[in-house]
Amino acid sequence: MPFPPTAGFVVQGSNGEYPYLTREERIEVVHRVRQAVPKNKLLMAGSGCESTQATIEMTVSMASAGADAVLVVTPCYYRGKMTSAALIHHYTKVAESSPVPVVLYSVPGNTGLDLPVDAIVALSQHPNIVGLKDSGGDITRVGLIVHKTRNQDFQVLSGSAGFLLAGYSVGAIGGVCALANILGTQVCELERLCLAGQWDAAKELQYRLIEPNAAVTRKFGIPGLKQAMEWFGYYGGPCRPPLLPLTETEVKELHRDFTANGWL
Amino acid sequence: MPFPPTAGFVVQGSNGEYPYLTREERIEVVHRVRQAVPKNKLLMAGSGCESTQATIEMTVSMASAGADAVLVVTPCYYRGKMTSAALIHHYTKVAESSPVPVVLYSVPGNTGLDLPVDAIVALSQHPNIVGLKDSGGDITRVGLIVHKTRNQDFQVLSGSAGFLLAGYSVGAIGGVCALANILGTQVCELERLCLAGQWDAAKELQYRLIEPNAAVTRKFGIPGLKQAMEWFGYYGGPCRPPLLPLTETEVKELHRDFTANGWL
Amino acid sequence: MPFPPTAGFVVQGSNGEYPYLTREERIEVVHRVRQAVPKNKLLMAGSGCESTQATIEMTVSMASAGADAVLVVTPCYYRGKMTSAALIHHYTKVAESSPVPVVLYSVPGNTGLDLPVDAIVALSQHPNIVGLKDSGGDITRVGLIVHKTRNQDFQVLSGSAGFLLAGYSVGAIGGVCALANILGTQVCELERLCLAGQWDAAKELQYRLIEPNAAVTRKFGIPGLKQAMEWFGYYGGPCRPPLLPLTETEVKELHRDFTANGWL
Amino acid sequence: MPFPPTAGFVVQGSNGEYPYLTREERIEVVHRVRQAVPKNKLLMAGSGCESTQATIEMTVSMASAGADAVLVVTPCYYRGKMTSAALIHHYTKVAESSPVPVVLYSVPGNTGLDLPVDAIVALSQHPNIVGLKDSGGDITRVGLIVHKTRNQDFQVLSGSAGFLLAGYSVGAIGGVCALANILGTQVCELERLCLAGQWDAAKELQYRLIEPNAAVTRKFGIPGLKQAMEWFGYYGGPCRPPLLPLTETEVKELHRDFTANGWL
Repeated sequence: MPFPPTAGFVVQGSNGEYPYLTREERIEVVHRVRQAVPKNKLLMAGSGCESTQATIEMTVSMASAGADAVLVVTPCYYRGKMTSAALIHHYTKVAESSPVPVVLYSVPGNTGLDLPVDAIVALSQHPNIVGLKDSGGDITRVGLIVHKTRNQDFQVLSGSAGFLLAGYSVGAIGGVCALANILGTQVCELERLCLAGQWDAAKELQYRLIEPNAAVTRKFGIPGLKQAMEWFGYYGGPCRPPLLPLTETEVKELHRDFTANGWL
Repeated sequence: MPFPPTAGFVVQGSNGEYPYLTREERIEVVHRVRQAVPKNKLLMAGSGCESTQATIEMTVSMASAGADAVLVVTPCYYRGKMTSAALIHHYTKVAESSPVPVVLYSVPGNTGLDLPVDAIVALSQHPNIVGLKDSGGDITRVGLIVHKTRNQDFQVLSGSAGFLLAGYSVGAIGGVCALANILGTQVCELERLCLAGQWDAAKELQYRLIEPNAAVTRKFGIPGLKQAMEWFGYYGGPCRPPLLPLTETEVKELHRDFTANGWL
Repeated sequence: MPFPPTAGFVVQGSNGEYPYLTREERIEVVHRVRQAVPKNKLLMAGSGCESTQATIEMTVSMASAGADAVLVVTPCYYRGKMTSAALIHHYTKVAESSPVPVVLYSVPGNTGLDLPVDAIVALSQHPNIVGLKDSGGDITRVGLIVHKTRNQDFQVLSGSAGFLLAGYSVGAIGGVCALANILGTQVCELERLCLAGQWDAAKELQYRLIEPNAAVTRKFGIPGLKQAMEWFGYYGGPCRPPLLPLTETEVKELHRDFTANGWL
Repeated sequence: MPFPPTAGFVVQGSNGEYPYLTREERIEVVHRVRQAVPKNKLLMAGSGCESTQATIEMTVSMASAGADAVLVVTPCYYRGKMTSAALIHHYTKVAESSPVPVVLYSVPGNTGLDLPVDAIVALSQHPNIVGLKDSGGDITRVGLIVHKTRNQDFQVLSGSAGFLLAGYSVGAIGGVCALANILGTQVCELERLCLAGQWDAAKELQYRLIEPNAAVTRKFGIPGLKQAMEWFGYYGGPCRPPLLPLTETEVKELHRDFTANGWL
């Protein structure tokens, strides 16, 4: 099966089960992906850990393993203390030590934490912080972030295929989408239509991607994503516990979310 | 001061302080607005109450007072019991009794409750339910609702100026915006640009409306809205307690949210 | 059926469906209850409305109708603006105008709002504010409130039978419990055991009340409460829409929550 | 400074900054603590990781390093998928592989996840799962868990000094309290008073511990805990980033929370 026409790959965003990998596995996965994908495809590796020091070390290792950039999720266990000041300090230290450009990553569905807009604006001024993946889906916030960082060399990426069109409409310049593991060509086609200003065609395609996207993210999570990959000719494989495989009923509902939108 | 070029007016959406008006005042306000505005301007009146019976009575009274349509907020005090079944029953009963078309209203910031998508889809099939005002700002949800109700005669309206452009991009056909009380001409211009497909100009205008909009809604609420109206030549007037007027510090921050975006 | 041995009755707490009653009905219910219950039973009437003015008027009417005290729920529709300052202002105005003592009422499960501890402490100093019903179930907060208001003539009441024993253990002096509509004698016996220091017996009784209490509050709400009342010889009667009656499956689960604890 | 009269020590509960330690550091800390504390003091070590496999390995290592029992926090990154079934599977696998008894750990303030009651009841039947530390503070839930697990050899521990008395009142048999790092003797005295049935004296002591406890947990977190330890003759030391030290203003407020309750 050929690669989808994406600009590159993210390894160890939330759907890469990175919290279930050991340090060594995390690095090895990046190493192997780098060997497998063509040099002209960007490779972004998730290097976020809870502590600043561990994140720095993982970032350096990821770069050595061949990552072109790193995606750094917000630390979150002590979320009550993850103030703008703490997060600015964290990302600044990581950016200072990173051999490759740093992309911020806000994913409140998993972390229970939104990277605050004022922190993003401050961090956008750092020369080694080049963008943000925002998976929260608050499109007003996405627009505001684009607006307030536009004088910097800073790129905002939609973190989910559910609001990819809307993201482009307010100035996001791309997306990092779990759904692209399954419908990669279609997600790229949606991007093309948006960039070409073919909004009506884009809208029709966007509509048909919302339910499949919800199914493999919020509704059924990684077990759903892996199950659906199998249907489209990819290797999904098992999840690591404590993630459980889908029940039969869940598999049926997942299937319906794809068939109802004409994908299966 | 002339009327803004809106298609009409909503009286007693959340910013009309309707929970602080008596039954009699609610009806009288609609009556007076109807007399004041030209016949070619649509008048939509908020007629939602907690009980189904009270909502029906208020709906009938609003129609008698001259409302062209009613906007019916979700009941919310017993939110744990406001299931799809309960809400479908509620809105169906209201729609059956209403002399004028009914518009659903979901505003989780105030009610702590999202009108579920499945309930909206079911209700969109009722001949006297003609649309939805969605103020939640979840643009994926907005797109999905448009997609799943498109075979009905059903219109989706963005409930806030913060995501007006994004709403149009995914198929909303208009908006009901608190900010239009202050920057009505500009909000209408944003609509015009979106409908004309001038997305780049629309985007620039949208950016400049996000912070003022947040200031008069989530950040400073009705006291902020009324204060800002004064600056633009309207009568804002005092709030009813328990809403308090802004402090001096808050007034300054509110002012800054308008000046920083070039509106004052 | 004789009255339960409670100190009195609360009419139009959350379970009295007060948001579904008209102004006139609210007052009439209090009037009729006053005629029905002996004079030595305290009658507390819920008089909270969204606006300060309406709450004052309802409070005065409730006192005229025979209420010995009023229970005033926090206004909540504009919850983002219901700051400590706003709530202190609201309750102070109500207390100043009330012919009878005022009891504060915090019920975040319905209102999405906790009356802040600092506001409670400030309000406890008002001579006409005599207590608090706290239904949130955060026992640390209950203890702190007792501690910080103990120099005032101020009484803290547990707002649910689920934590009645724990409430007494940290200094609450009573309770207002939905479950007392069904198991009134038992709830009073639990109080007696706590006040007599018979903590082991109290604990055994408390355990058996937790699931029935959850069933008629959080799990099945007012429809569950009314259904269960029928089983114990009371008139529960229908709910007002939009509250729906329980489904057969729900009735069975409700029944099990009582039988499993030896009450049916 | 002598050891406080606790039954033992928990190493790497939330306040041990365990998410910021490497695998090797986590094990070494337990090893060193075991050497330092008398054999008659129980040593419980936090061995929770995100994946089941990593948790098993850490559990085995902790036992080898001298832990008498392990405290296993709920995995939480994919919280949407951490259903009762997933968590029962996780803890069962860990318990099967653990050389020492397992204690469940629910701390929603950090994880955004409550270990469901039905999962706790099911797991209480496993011979190698001996108890629960519950830090959520929902006392109704604590009572219900005690009630439903009492036929098992299963012990419920209050996870915070703020509701320690209330926990005993509903049948918890002890506590694991951050505050014991600072006021260990006093927390043990509170336990003694509760176990001796001296509830009035217990209540007075409990009141004075609520604000200091809140200050070093929810309000100021680990930086607050470490700062306060310094005032009481212990070594608190610096936090690891991204946790920041307290600001001067915060230090003053922290100090006031201790002085206002007579501890400094």
